[in-house]
Amino acid sequence: MQELAPVNKIMNLPIIQPLNQSAMQFARERQNQLTKPAGSLSKLEELSIQLAGITGKNIPHIKNKVIIVMAGDHGVVAEGVSAYPQEVTPQMVLNFLSGGAAINVLANHIGAKVVVVDMGVANEISTDDEKLIRRSIGLGTQNLAQCQAMKREQAQESIQSGIEIALAEISKGADIIGTGDMGIGNTTPSAAIACALMNVHPEKIAGRGTGVDDDGLKRKISVIEKSLKVNKPNVNDGLDVLSKVGGFEIGGLAGVMIGAASKNIPVMVDGFISTAAAMIAVTLAPQCKDYLIFAHRSKENGHALMLDWLNAKPLLDLDLRLGEGTGATFGISLAEAACKILSEMATFGEAGVSAAV
Amino acid sequence: MQELAPVNKIMNLPIIQPLNQSAMQFARERQNQLTKPAGSLSKLEELSIQLAGITGKNIPHIKNKVIIVMAGDHGVVAEGVSAYPQEVTPQMVLNFLSGGAAINVLANHIGAKVVVVDMGVANEISTDDEKLIRRSIGLGTQNLAQCQAMKREQAQESIQSGIEIALAEISKGADIIGTGDMGIGNTTPSAAIACALMNVHPEKIAGRGTGVDDDGLKRKISVIEKSLKVNKPNVNDGLDVLSKVGGFEIGGLAGVMIGAASKNIPVMVDGFISTAAAMIAVTLAPQCKDYLIFAHRSKENGHALMLDWLNAKPLLDLDLRLGEGTGATFGISLAEAACKILSEMATFGEAGVSAAV
Repeated sequence: MQELAPVNKIMNLPIIQPLNQSAMQFARERQNQLTKPAGSLSKLEELSIQLAGITGKNIPHIKNKVIIVMAGDHGVVAEGVSAYPQEVTPQMVLNFLSGGAAINVLANHIGAKVVVVDMGVANEISTDDEKLIRRSIGLGTQNLAQCQAMKREQAQESIQSGIEIALAEISKGADIIGTGDMGIGNTTPSAAIACALMNVHPEKIAGRGTGVDDDGLKRKISVIEKSLKVNKPNVNDGLDVLSKVGGFEIGGLAGVMIGAASKNIPVMVDGFISTAAAMIAVTLAPQCKDYLIFAHRSKENGHALMLDWLNAKPLLDLDLRLGEGTGATFGISLAEAACKILSEMATFGEAGVSAAV
Repeated sequence: MQELAPVNKIMNLPIIQPLNQSAMQFARERQNQLTKPAGSLSKLEELSIQLAGITGKNIPHIKNKVIIVMAGDHGVVAEGVSAYPQEVTPQMVLNFLSGGAAINVLANHIGAKVVVVDMGVANEISTDDEKLIRRSIGLGTQNLAQCQAMKREQAQESIQSGIEIALAEISKGADIIGTGDMGIGNTTPSAAIACALMNVHPEKIAGRGTGVDDDGLKRKISVIEKSLKVNKPNVNDGLDVLSKVGGFEIGGLAGVMIGAASKNIPVMVDGFISTAAAMIAVTLAPQCKDYLIFAHRSKENGHALMLDWLNAKPLLDLDLRLGEGTGATFGISLAEAACKILSEMATFGEAGVSAAV
């Protein structure tokens, strides 16, 4: 009998298959037959090969695109780590629902649907809009500088919710899922997760988030330091790290990644917060890493190091630091283009073009 | 009476206005009112402000997108500087017309039209497809390692043709023009142009193009060295550089840039060859620089230095080295997205979202 993945020793996560090597080989060979110098589309070619491996299809197609934006609040805002008040989280959720946020505009631009999830916003979201998926695990996390952010059961529930939400979108036809976040203060738990798993000092990871000043940044660094000292997360246990210094939306996004990977659906990972979620996801389920595509390198301090830790090469470098899945939209458009190159271009033979001498 | 720009001392080029500062100021202020942390969309915000300045519209729109792909041949292929035979140039032109090339797929992906121009292909392009614009200036250039690539009058004609083709597309409604090239051997004249204008050794600029081996690269470097020694281009005279070591499609693309700039239309510059054309364009008409947006940093050796010389910060870094305007398509999609951010996002006031504390 096959040994269970380490993940399944912690909680009952869905099984993730290795990438389909034969589909990847087919895609690789086809790229060399298309009417262009071999390798000249570089990262797009690699992306098409990865997508073949993920989907198990020789020529993958991306048509139905979904951005899952998860919102949650963070008790740590009591420490003064954000430039914005906590009321902005539900306000932005309403903005997502009415279509006025950056993610709405950019998702429309690439023809993607936005799915908005309340994973644990602190204040009531006063809407009867049925588009809002209500999966709140609590009215914000506890202050991680004082105690653990959430109970272990809540961390598990956040992952489980994320898996279920991903599976629901996939059953409705999603070909790719982009991750997005909203949560005032959420760069602090994200940085704490990274510091714990990478064992580096918060100075290397913490950034200005939505725009704190020098004093705010110093405060943020010392808050993260304190959170690690107080909570002592066990870096071999993703659930422990998530529960001690994480957030509900971060757990949810990690679940989305694991759920999508288990169904052979690619995940376009957005910026800083989504990457922290990816670190939790691969700690819980290492094989999901191959299903993750990293959209961009955020301007937020430490993101580049986090990507290195994941051995991830992001597609874009646009100095974005907004979150919401905004960077993921551009990555998804590239992924769709990569698939179209594979399926729609003529081969040398078909076009009657001479090969290299 | 205003003094004529240096350009007009050489040939009668259209006048290019400085960017519209008031539109830029409007766009800059609006970006700070939109529901996102100020500056968090970074390069996209800057792009939207540049596009406001280019178009003179407070809130610019990009709807009609055109990629102009110019094809030309190069006598210098006799020196063995390319991995592909010259017959590939007209074969690829036919591939563009029938929709099987990478540029067709990627232009379709972003909803852009592809305009194909024969600026001077060496072999007959056997088609009666009326989509092909025939503006051939000669059956390929002369071998620039032996003599000047074209007559000064031909260089002037190539620029003039490019201007006219741009104006024709703009009169049909183009909101943005992407540049693309096709021409076996055309990285050699492009590198020679860069070496001349930047006064650097060909070793710093010449690359493998479509994929020459080490010997091919050495040959290419010595060919470029020879071309500069034989022709002694006058770096203060863009027409002289173009005629001595350039190409018909390179001159055409420089003309496209100047023509578009004169009509307040942004140009998305593709990779290595298009950037060489941009260097000619700004040498002839320095004010056109502000109308150029640089899509990506090509993998071709020397492109980064050429961008530095132009003081250009490319949007993307995808290791592309295909040409045809393929990189420009992704840049155009970003430019369109940047405009949509400005026009479609809600402001803090509209959405009832609290500002930073």
